[in-house]
Amino acid sequence: MISIEEARTRLLAALHPTPAETLGLAEAWNRVTAAPVAARLTQPPADVSAMDGYALRAADGTAGAVLRVIGAAPAGHPFKGAIGPGEAVRLFTGSFVPAGADAVLLQEDATAAEGTVTVNEAVLAGRHIRRAGQDFQAGAILIPAGQRLSARDIGLAAAANHPWLAVHRRPEIAILATGDEIALPGEPIPPGGIISSNAHALAALVRAAGGNPRVLPIARDSEEAIADAAEGARGADMLVTTGGASVGDHDLVVPGLARRGLEVDFWKIAMRPGKPLMFGRMGGEDGIAVLGLPGNPVSALVCAILFLMPAIARMAGLPAAAPPSEAAMLGEALPANDHRADHLRGHLETGADGVAVVRAFPRQDSALLHRLAAANALILRAPHAPAAEAGAAVEVIRLDRLGI
Amino acid sequence: MISIEEARTRLLAALHPTPAETLGLAEAWNRVTAAPVAARLTQPPADVSAMDGYALRAADGTAGAVLRVIGAAPAGHPFKGAIGPGEAVRLFTGSFVPAGADAVLLQEDATAAEGTVTVNEAVLAGRHIRRAGQDFQAGAILIPAGQRLSARDIGLAAAANHPWLAVHRRPEIAILATGDEIALPGEPIPPGGIISSNAHALAALVRAAGGNPRVLPIARDSEEAIADAAEGARGADMLVTTGGASVGDHDLVVPGLARRGLEVDFWKIAMRPGKPLMFGRMGGEDGIAVLGLPGNPVSALVCAILFLMPAIARMAGLPAAAPPSEAAMLGEALPANDHRADHLRGHLETGADGVAVVRAFPRQDSALLHRLAAANALILRAPHAPAAEAGAAVEVIRLDRLGI
Repeated sequence: MISIEEARTRLLAALHPTPAETLGLAEAWNRVTAAPVAARLTQPPADVSAMDGYALRAADGTAGAVLRVIGAAPAGHPFKGAIGPGEAVRLFTGSFVPAGADAVLLQEDATAAEGTVTVNEAVLAGRHIRRAGQDFQAGAILIPAGQRLSARDIGLAAAANHPWLAVHRRPEIAILATGDEIALPGEPIPPGGIISSNAHALAALVRAAGGNPRVLPIARDSEEAIADAAEGARGADMLVTTGGASVGDHDLVVPGLARRGLEVDFWKIAMRPGKPLMFGRMGGEDGIAVLGLPGNPVSALVCAILFLMPAIARMAGLPAAAPPSEAAMLGEALPANDHRADHLRGHLETGADGVAVVRAFPRQDSALLHRLAAANALILRAPHAPAAEAGAAVEVIRLDRLGI
Repeated sequence: MISIEEARTRLLAALHPTPAETLGLAEAWNRVTAAPVAARLTQPPADVSAMDGYALRAADGTAGAVLRVIGAAPAGHPFKGAIGPGEAVRLFTGSFVPAGADAVLLQEDATAAEGTVTVNEAVLAGRHIRRAGQDFQAGAILIPAGQRLSARDIGLAAAANHPWLAVHRRPEIAILATGDEIALPGEPIPPGGIISSNAHALAALVRAAGGNPRVLPIARDSEEAIADAAEGARGADMLVTTGGASVGDHDLVVPGLARRGLEVDFWKIAMRPGKPLMFGRMGGEDGIAVLGLPGNPVSALVCAILFLMPAIARMAGLPAAAPPSEAAMLGEALPANDHRADHLRGHLETGADGVAVVRAFPRQDSALLHRLAAANALILRAPHAPAAEAGAAVEVIRLDRLGI
């Protein structure tokens, strides 16, 4: 058996970011940059006023002075001349400061009359002027490659004059559920069968992770059916299988996909819930990555959180990493763990003091999908973790924050 | 001036969830349920085996007993007969437990031979059997109305036999930037002009909040141009304007939209960064809600986080609420605040002890979009908040977690 960390490291090392595509700005939200975004202009492009008021020479801005107003410069309509001694120009927030001026008299510190303005409050040179390039200079790298784009990043890229952004293509994930006993929701259920929930739960998880899901038709329990179904994964970046329970997980998937050239790595992972994880590649070096998940719905989702989400993030252009986890405080004691890493479903609540307190559900049956859906946290228990008292620190994955 | 809370309460009270639409399961991820999701079947549908092994009568399962194996029941292929004294049936995880059996002998506690199995470890009645309905009973409400659907919820709805879900339609948000001085990225910039970043930053924020953005062409600074542009908002759930800086924010937007029937509420809000917020409705009671944001990019985004995101969440079917915030610890002292609620851009880091420590950027100039993009938290400072020492608790909005 190998550890989760080792399996994840080996999995992620075998994956690469998808190639870049060009998207319009707003469509690029939540994608990962494939190239650095450099400023294409300087912002502000010139010295601009930070307030509504008047441009003048600081030397003229003494209390009581009366200046001639020789023009106005609304934003977008710069004043074309220069300001001389005893002169002022009406300005607004964002207006370019005219040539010759080095100070701004605030509107509320001025009294305007026909063609003149009286200074009520002495000005300071440079005050209320935003200098050219104060936000950014042309050529400066504003957003590095490999960063997921926030709404603020989109605004910044827009301000830097980028109508398009080069981002990694969404990883395309084909999903194949197998089993004689399963039916899709709303379809006739075979005798002794159950509804297949895995394919659509995984499709939603793929979306949450920033991938495009492609749900393939259910493959019945034969090598031939599985080989045929795998044809539907052509062009995808990864094929995810979830085994039928009528035979051992992967027992038919591996030979079925082998008919299409699967070269397989197969790992027994010291974890719970979960079972052996299958990883491989169909079609040689440049072929499609294959990840085999368990058929049990709870095990499939937990394994998807631990392995598939990081895999999609990696293919989407982010660094190889474990799923985001954070510290929380145990609300109730936990017994010592055995040799397998455990992922206890539980409920986390943050108190008014900001401390996140988590309690494991008393029942951890991996058949209970309803309980899994009610959880908002997975408590991570390392192999051989000793018993932990209430109040002890544990690491948790916040399911509610990941959309999963 | 009114408080942020009062303005938000009035805004949200004027909004209603969008009507329901029917979506296929996986498309419903991250949408909000418009009706409760009840189980359409019982899960498991019958008593099933939790392990691979043999079904038998508990009375027969004493150590050393040899039983006749009268059949096998892979999942999806239930055994049709009943088990009598001295008999066993081969089972797998998920197999229906045949009539007459009340115990499961684990595979690893058994020795199989031609037509028989030997019990090596005495069985317990009921052990390793998952009872019918243990996950959920037909008719049970599994997901309430008004809940955002996680990937686990999608799996649960699938298992409960729902091919379709009724969810609230994505709120359609029209976005109108106005100003003589602005140009879209990549377009010719007017003299003295700047690139308009607001429309696309807001479009990305709308996506992050679960809405559909509709970016309208920029309206120049005239009432007529603004009235014409507003035609493009027809059929949307909300029109968001962001004022040009060449005139006072909303100075032309309000009379421009009034030509299309805008009835306006206008609030001065005691906050920073930000300016007066305009709220109203065009076209009577059933008309389109109008939210007027400032033209300054940082102010526009902060106001959008405080008002537009909760508005979209409400229209998307969630309860009226403030944007999610949480407690953090100040890494550096903060001075006392004045009468306006402040939203300090800053950087938050969570230590190995799980404590989130936040530091405000030294410079809070609302013209610095680059700095805003570099922030991962807004520190909320209430009006008249006293000076706070390093180590004090503050409330923060985690920008990185909201995709904004």
